[in-house]
Amino acid sequence: MDAFMQAAIDEARQGLAEGGIPIGSVIVHKGRIIGRGHNRRVQEGSAIRHGEMDAFENAGRQPASVYREAVLYTTLSPCSMCSGAILLYGIPRIIVGENRTFLGEEELLRSRGVEVEVLQDATCIALMEEFIEARPELWNEDIGE
Amino acid sequence: MDAFMQAAIDEARQGLAEGGIPIGSVIVHKGRIIGRGHNRRVQEGSAIRHGEMDAFENAGRQPASVYREAVLYTTLSPCSMCSGAILLYGIPRIIVGENRTFLGEEELLRSRGVEVEVLQDATCIALMEEFIEARPELWNEDIGE
Repeated sequence: MDAFMQAAIDEARQGLAEGGIPIGSVIVHKGRIIGRGHNRRVQEGSAIRHGEMDAFENAGRQPASVYREAVLYTTLSPCSMCSGAILLYGIPRIIVGENRTFLGEEELLRSRGVEVEVLQDATCIALMEEFIEARPELWNEDIGE
Repeated sequence: MDAFMQAAIDEARQGLAEGGIPIGSVIVHKGRIIGRGHNRRVQEGSAIRHGEMDAFENAGRQPASVYREAVLYTTLSPCSMCSGAILLYGIPRIIVGENRTFLGEEELLRSRGVEVEVLQDATCIALMEEFIEARPELWNEDIGE
């Protein structure tokens, strides 16, 4: 397992341990994690703190030059909001843990030139499958359904 | 002036008074404002608190049924991140103060069925023109440039 995807999975697991939705993300620049985060819908009553958004927020205000050399790792295919943030900041490459339990805006991202790699990682899939089975209403809320 | 766009402009002005970027937004459900916000990049050092995102966050966790009957007002054409949030939550209609100083993802929103009305309001335009003239580097940071 890539160490950065492992860090994203660690974030997802931390979110689960907090009673939250197990999705995690890290943003990497020049081989170093500059922001890490996990979904905080439950923990902070937040409608916008998806895992990727939390990683962006925790990375803080960065110059465009940093975003444009960054790689974003996320345990789950990014929804339209998180994909929009990826486009806003011009992140050129994302690594996605899995897109079997939820397929986000990968096609839109690719059409705008973002390189999208999907690992179909068994750990990421199991985290979401178990969560969706246990808390379907919370999951639906998180994806606006 | 529509009272809801006026409320969004009031938010934008509050942001400016705080030393921030003058963009405001309100989310309206059944004729009542359920969330209001303004850009907080400067105030909170935030990379994700655009005006629309702040309005979503301040509206709190809402059921899908509420979002799907809501109207979002924003003083400025929504960027890809904020447009993504609008798509995530299935907001069916947005009212945009102006798109002369920045054109966001209106075409994407329309292609997904969102009704987009642009007012080209002189107050909204003047707020952004004066801000961009005064703080071009801060504005560029906010749109990932």
